[in-house]
Amino acid sequence: MKRDNGFLGALYLGDRRCRFRVWAALAESLEVELDGRLRVPLKRGEEGYFEGIVEGAGPGTRYAYRLDGRDPRPDPASRFQPEGVHGPSMVVDPSFDWSGEGEWRGHYLSDCILYELHVGTFTPEGTFDAVIPHLDRLRDLGVNAIEIMPVAQFPGSRNWGYDGVLPFAVQNSYGGPEGLNRLVSACHARGIGVVLDVVYNHLGPEGNYLGEFGPYFTDRYKTPWGLALNFDGPDSDPVRRYFIENALHWIAEHHVDALRLDAVHAIADASERPFLQELGTALHELGSRLGRHVYAIAESDLNTLQFLRPAEQGGCGLDGQWTDDFHHSLHTLLTGERTGYYQDFGTLDQMAKTMRGGFVYTGQRSPHRRRRHGVPADSIEAARHVICIQNHDQTGNRMLGERLASLVSFESLKLAAAAVLLSPFLPLLFMGEEWGETAPFLYFVSHSDEDLVRAVREGRSEEFAAFSWQGEAPDPQAEETFERSRIDPSLREREPNALLYAFYKELIRLRKTHPVLAHLSKRDLEVKVEGETIVMRRWNGDREVLILFNFGEEELSAPSGWEKLLDSTEERWGGRGSGGRSVKVLER
Amino acid sequence: MKRDNGFLGALYLGDRRCRFRVWAALAESLEVELDGRLRVPLKRGEEGYFEGIVEGAGPGTRYAYRLDGRDPRPDPASRFQPEGVHGPSMVVDPSFDWSGEGEWRGHYLSDCILYELHVGTFTPEGTFDAVIPHLDRLRDLGVNAIEIMPVAQFPGSRNWGYDGVLPFAVQNSYGGPEGLNRLVSACHARGIGVVLDVVYNHLGPEGNYLGEFGPYFTDRYKTPWGLALNFDGPDSDPVRRYFIENALHWIAEHHVDALRLDAVHAIADASERPFLQELGTALHELGSRLGRHVYAIAESDLNTLQFLRPAEQGGCGLDGQWTDDFHHSLHTLLTGERTGYYQDFGTLDQMAKTMRGGFVYTGQRSPHRRRRHGVPADSIEAARHVICIQNHDQTGNRMLGERLASLVSFESLKLAAAAVLLSPFLPLLFMGEEWGETAPFLYFVSHSDEDLVRAVREGRSEEFAAFSWQGEAPDPQAEETFERSRIDPSLREREPNALLYAFYKELIRLRKTHPVLAHLSKRDLEVKVEGETIVMRRWNGDREVLILFNFGEEELSAPSGWEKLLDSTEERWGGRGSGGRSVKVLER
Repeated sequence: MKRDNGFLGALYLGDRRCRFRVWAALAESLEVELDGRLRVPLKRGEEGYFEGIVEGAGPGTRYAYRLDGRDPRPDPASRFQPEGVHGPSMVVDPSFDWSGEGEWRGHYLSDCILYELHVGTFTPEGTFDAVIPHLDRLRDLGVNAIEIMPVAQFPGSRNWGYDGVLPFAVQNSYGGPEGLNRLVSACHARGIGVVLDVVYNHLGPEGNYLGEFGPYFTDRYKTPWGLALNFDGPDSDPVRRYFIENALHWIAEHHVDALRLDAVHAIADASERPFLQELGTALHELGSRLGRHVYAIAESDLNTLQFLRPAEQGGCGLDGQWTDDFHHSLHTLLTGERTGYYQDFGTLDQMAKTMRGGFVYTGQRSPHRRRRHGVPADSIEAARHVICIQNHDQTGNRMLGERLASLVSFESLKLAAAAVLLSPFLPLLFMGEEWGETAPFLYFVSHSDEDLVRAVREGRSEEFAAFSWQGEAPDPQAEETFERSRIDPSLREREPNALLYAFYKELIRLRKTHPVLAHLSKRDLEVKVEGETIVMRRWNGDREVLILFNFGEEELSAPSGWEKLLDSTEERWGGRGSGGRSVKVLER
Repeated sequence: MKRDNGFLGALYLGDRRCRFRVWAALAESLEVELDGRLRVPLKRGEEGYFEGIVEGAGPGTRYAYRLDGRDPRPDPASRFQPEGVHGPSMVVDPSFDWSGEGEWRGHYLSDCILYELHVGTFTPEGTFDAVIPHLDRLRDLGVNAIEIMPVAQFPGSRNWGYDGVLPFAVQNSYGGPEGLNRLVSACHARGIGVVLDVVYNHLGPEGNYLGEFGPYFTDRYKTPWGLALNFDGPDSDPVRRYFIENALHWIAEHHVDALRLDAVHAIADASERPFLQELGTALHELGSRLGRHVYAIAESDLNTLQFLRPAEQGGCGLDGQWTDDFHHSLHTLLTGERTGYYQDFGTLDQMAKTMRGGFVYTGQRSPHRRRRHGVPADSIEAARHVICIQNHDQTGNRMLGERLASLVSFESLKLAAAAVLLSPFLPLLFMGEEWGETAPFLYFVSHSDEDLVRAVREGRSEEFAAFSWQGEAPDPQAEETFERSRIDPSLREREPNALLYAFYKELIRLRKTHPVLAHLSKRDLEVKVEGETIVMRRWNGDREVLILFNFGEEELSAPSGWEKLLDSTEERWGGRGSGGRSVKVLER
């Protein structure tokens, strides 16, 4: 499939001339309406693509499509929605001064320390530009890649981003496409990569007009969130192309380095050449062409090899994948929680297994799933497993949105941080965890459709009916719910937050600089359980590191013959000099 | 998963003692009712399996299950339903005298000449036993494997078999489990293997009580024929086990050699360890254990590698797969038909491509499917592609059920036979084609539910609305429709049928005995189009065969320097000594 930048949408050609192209297989005629006045018919071509070059349309021109003379609709490939999801689209000037990012080529994925942030709650302003002043601090912490929660246009100004309905449009309230460019450029100038979270498994419930244009959706499959996308039925090729063009657009037009593909297990596709394989191939080809490292990371709750296996072997050929078993093992050990999917976890043996290989469930029965689950992960390189101890989902999917800092002791936070950062997997931090942020990360929306608002509220209440002893579920639509979720970086200068912050920084420094800890391998690694401690031994050549993750309450004496690299019980890290729930790092 | 023969169902232990085991996760209590009188509770064990050893139950005892005291239902793993799908199940004596089959170990799949037959219409009696007297003739023809359309208990006595609802029970009107054993034994005694068609993608609409026992079905997916089976959701492990035990039961209890897995593309399963992979592995393990060749062949309309790729690479590890592109290319060339899925076919280049590699669609757009379709098949060994020029589907899915002999000339029939039998793929004949049977093979059912009968009739009429110029669609429920579909082997003794029969026999003889034709390889093969002729060159070492498939109407002169092996225009094969629509086989 031949591709060019800006295949879909309004491509500004200069001299107030603009090429419009849109797939509208369900329409017989289609007009582009400029600034609510002039209507210009586009010509129907093969497979239902309408196209035309229009004079008098330039950056700032607002436009919409009328299908068979009906009401105007935003462009499915709109780059900007100045008035939100229901309003017209806007022609944007694709030129941007990227000189600030220098000769940026990207990091190797395996070198990354990922940092997930939500633009709306990361700063008081809630914009891309407001993130920029924080980048030096993140670099100083050791973070070298931010992972931005979805920015595709969603209804209103408060949303996690998974209700996006215009996948090419950059959220207006965040600062639109130019705002994103400024942030990416500022990141790259500081040696920080950018991972963008993109949603290819459903579209949001409000402002979703795609179904009027073409058979984007299918009722042959179900998703938990809405109509499934048509990736394998009749007319699925243009649907695939739309999302693949979307992926390429983030890389080519916005210089993003990697995509985090949301919930790929909810992308139903029984075709012989899976959509995700095609997507991965297209991304890697574009990366080669641009001479940049370009990656695709799957958020998957299936313990499968399918997403990472090479395309030649029928896999999707993606680069990394979520490995939530690590989170669940660690979270259950630290909190003692055992409800919902946590019922599948909670033992030290499971923690050791995930530290060893990534997956805990490698074929045995999962009580929560009520079926056997997973396959062995031996063939997956360590640094392709993305792990964390909290992220937007694990935090925000709780009724009260508590972060780990609100659930466990200070000593446990350090233990958790060390487990994530000293494992050979790819670590992801969630904004604020490095100083033990205690603001919740709640579920919030700002829909304008009253019925939908009611449905979301009721759904949320029902979901947490079993937790009503904790009070009422916060109202997702309330502005206060959003405001409460904002983090406060000034906290990191207080005690004991500053000590935790310093501990994170030291862990990252050790991970990056110590020849054993920087060597990410499942083979040069041994993990066992001794009493209530998990003993991880890692080596590289003749150098060895021993890490004692003590989940018990008793002090553990370090074995002799080793030199201490780090001890979380020390006062410099806010400890009492001894005690359980600790981590000791030794070397020889 | 540990397995034993007869894991599910009524296992006769001798001395009128019987072990009953049934998965009934939806029941709290379950009783087995013997001969409509005595009720014995079974004990609920892990995962909802009920089990118990009952005294006073032996071969011939009729039994049914009462779930939570409700109406009696047949055993989902019933081996025999003497009174049909709604009646009680019967305990059968598993002992059978297999001495007649000798030291049978099976054929290599690649050596097989497959012959598909429908037990009900193959003979006037419509039973397994009535097939046996025909086996010597089939052997004489060169057939070494019969493929039996599904025999799992279906409603009434007239059905193709795809409406089966009790997958372990052998159709009562065909002769039940012992009848099948007698047929298999008689086949093996003559060196003929047995392939059984099994349906693991849905259950029939009448007598389907499985949903009362457990979550066998899911609404997360759709099939064209009914509720999708639950192969990847909660509680799917016992569902998988049920069907895998079913597959093993045909091999172990009935000595079947291979399974033809019906419409695997309709088995929706997004799990990390696909059901079909597990099934293939279990079948091959059983084959190794028994010291027999055991195969699984997928009927698939997806041009994918997924079903054949080894399990270690995430594939299903099956042995062969339907390659309908061959049929469609040949059928369209011979008939000129271009409606429905035939619109994707019809050129000599496509015929040459399928003769070369199996798949015509290897990634290009299919007009009928309205999407790109297929992947290259280079890595699939020739003899893993099952091909034919007619089968129950291609014939019976026509409104009037015409076989090829009713659609094209006698010369074309020979051309078609040669294309199938002289290609290096695995050939399948459909009962009667070897003598040019002209009885139709119509769609027939014998439901007892009036609403269902009406729905089937209406569905059939609607399906063929576009063909109403051919008259009315035959009534599927009418006995006459079934009777008209019966074949008449005495035809093969008449002219010109006998000549066609002899031609088939000669083709099979050549295929099996000629060192070039017996060498099945895609690499030692070249196919090109010259005018209206497809020229296939095959070689093995320094021996060569040239086959000229002439689809035109003009006589073709054979190139010099070659010796003639076969010429379909010769009078001995009913030809006129020259002319188009012919095949010439040459060697040097």
